[in-house]
Amino acid sequence: MKRSWLILADGYLLERNAKTAHGVIRYSRDDIAAVLDRDNAGRRVAELLPELGRDAPIVATLEDGLAYSPTSFLLGVATPGGWMPEHWREWILGAIDAGLEIVNGLHTMLGDDAEFVARAKDKNVRLWDVREPPADIPLFSGRSLEVPQKIALTVGSDCAVGKKTTALELTRAGLDAGTKCEFVATGQTGVLIAGKGIAIDRVISDFVAGAAEQLVVDAEPDSEVLVIEGQGSVWHPAYSAVTLGLLHGSCPHALVLCHHAGRDAIEEPPYTKLPPLSELVATYEGLAAVNRPAKVACVSINCHGLPDDSADEVLAAAERDTGLPAGDVLRGDAPKLWDALSAALDS
Amino acid sequence: MKRSWLILADGYLLERNAKTAHGVIRYSRDDIAAVLDRDNAGRRVAELLPELGRDAPIVATLEDGLAYSPTSFLLGVATPGGWMPEHWREWILGAIDAGLEIVNGLHTMLGDDAEFVARAKDKNVRLWDVREPPADIPLFSGRSLEVPQKIALTVGSDCAVGKKTTALELTRAGLDAGTKCEFVATGQTGVLIAGKGIAIDRVISDFVAGAAEQLVVDAEPDSEVLVIEGQGSVWHPAYSAVTLGLLHGSCPHALVLCHHAGRDAIEEPPYTKLPPLSELVATYEGLAAVNRPAKVACVSINCHGLPDDSADEVLAAAERDTGLPAGDVLRGDAPKLWDALSAALDS
Repeated sequence: MKRSWLILADGYLLERNAKTAHGVIRYSRDDIAAVLDRDNAGRRVAELLPELGRDAPIVATLEDGLAYSPTSFLLGVATPGGWMPEHWREWILGAIDAGLEIVNGLHTMLGDDAEFVARAKDKNVRLWDVREPPADIPLFSGRSLEVPQKIALTVGSDCAVGKKTTALELTRAGLDAGTKCEFVATGQTGVLIAGKGIAIDRVISDFVAGAAEQLVVDAEPDSEVLVIEGQGSVWHPAYSAVTLGLLHGSCPHALVLCHHAGRDAIEEPPYTKLPPLSELVATYEGLAAVNRPAKVACVSINCHGLPDDSADEVLAAAERDTGLPAGDVLRGDAPKLWDALSAALDS
Repeated sequence: MKRSWLILADGYLLERNAKTAHGVIRYSRDDIAAVLDRDNAGRRVAELLPELGRDAPIVATLEDGLAYSPTSFLLGVATPGGWMPEHWREWILGAIDAGLEIVNGLHTMLGDDAEFVARAKDKNVRLWDVREPPADIPLFSGRSLEVPQKIALTVGSDCAVGKKTTALELTRAGLDAGTKCEFVATGQTGVLIAGKGIAIDRVISDFVAGAAEQLVVDAEPDSEVLVIEGQGSVWHPAYSAVTLGLLHGSCPHALVLCHHAGRDAIEEPPYTKLPPLSELVATYEGLAAVNRPAKVACVSINCHGLPDDSADEVLAAAERDTGLPAGDVLRGDAPKLWDALSAALDS
């Protein structure tokens, strides 16, 4: 189904808390009907956030938003702790009454709220809690080794280095190059962007590889390349289980290593020191080989905040260290990295 | 609390399905009051299963079992699919009425059954679903790096190679050698044996390292060495997420590699081929080093079914391949492996 989003930003459109809204505006293949944000109403997304590359009106009320004929109401702000502000209730009930699907990426589940559930049932409206995994995920069985598509996975040195963005930009670059690429979402923002997927970090650990496999098996039958959004890092002990379950469950043919310029240790406790990029490459290739040989095809480095000459130096050093093409996908290097990935998938 | 078990075996006492019952009889520090098994009633455990090293009467009825003053009724048979046979209901309700704690390792949860819950509440009896993880597991934070105990973890080439048995036998050998060793349970049978622990494969993947850390932090304060029961294998793609989450969450100082003689590929799909033992050692040491250096101290090989001279050959070959002491803990080698582990923990 093709959605048309009415995105609730609630005063946060210009803040980091709205990164879910930003991700959907930047990358969703669905339409953006309007953004609901009283503080910025009357202006336009393209005027306030030109880097997102897409425009939409900003409205002050639910009624104004409904005038743009949305199909889906997205709760697009990450609140502290993931809880739902009580004043959203009126908007949500109003959107249900207007027949809109309600899409929620917060920890608080719409499906646990008796009033929302009853009203949605009454109006025959879907409540979609994006973080809630499906109930029927099977154990990993090796079926992902059998699919016709070529499979690429982004892997990282740490959390928040650009694994999702890299997968999205490589998908775009592949499509631009004429390959039927499909972005496969494994985290909540990715799922919102793709309109489907599983937030695999919410899956019971015994089934996390099975969930990754399910995503591969359920991909569009006519896609040629699956570009899977990676999670966590083998060097982040809190999340390495998710990382390895995804690596083993998805059975990639090639990997893309993602890193943040200048990061020499993970950003959260216990602040594990990171080895050189060449060692990250060797470790991920060694672990992937449990299922089948998979080389790291290229290195995607997030050079956010660096002047261009410093970024160029970082990328050149990464190429010397690994012997692989390196680039920053938000500085125009996605086609270069796609070429390297495509060659690795074909080899 | 010191338990006294009345173990439901229900005709399966001599079958593989009763391995939970066998594990508890062999290893639990709690008392074994009696076994409820109509087909074998009147005989003794020591007569039918001498290898378990412990005796108990076998009775035909719940009433006969209650005469041995049990505190806890253990559903000790793994049924196909983990479902609870309907004819157990009468025994369970009778045990509740007699004031016994009900302990259940099946997938079917006692806590989901309204009749059991109501009756247990009425009688002030605990229903313990061993597979149900606690609700308040935190994210991994690195606290397990700070505990005073030395930490050992068993790791494996595959599932069902003897990681739990090795941890239990090394705990015994360490206690015999005068070290305050504590077995730390991470799977359902281990939890039943220890009387506490978490079945970590049922934990949401984002929290599996946090669960392992919690077990380390919650160990007895006066224990000197924690011997942690390993799970899965890095070479088993269905369960490698659990394996790595446990390895990173528990922050071991030393590892014990467990293997089954003659196994050159994992036993379940996709039948991943196993590398030489020396490569298993190097991979586990490399992954453990994310938190801190941890060497494999020795190799525990399950030589079940082999004649003694063949077992000796297998162990000698393992020692040549790895340069480490190797032994079969069920053939008397636990003290030898404990000496190697103890030396590694002290170094």
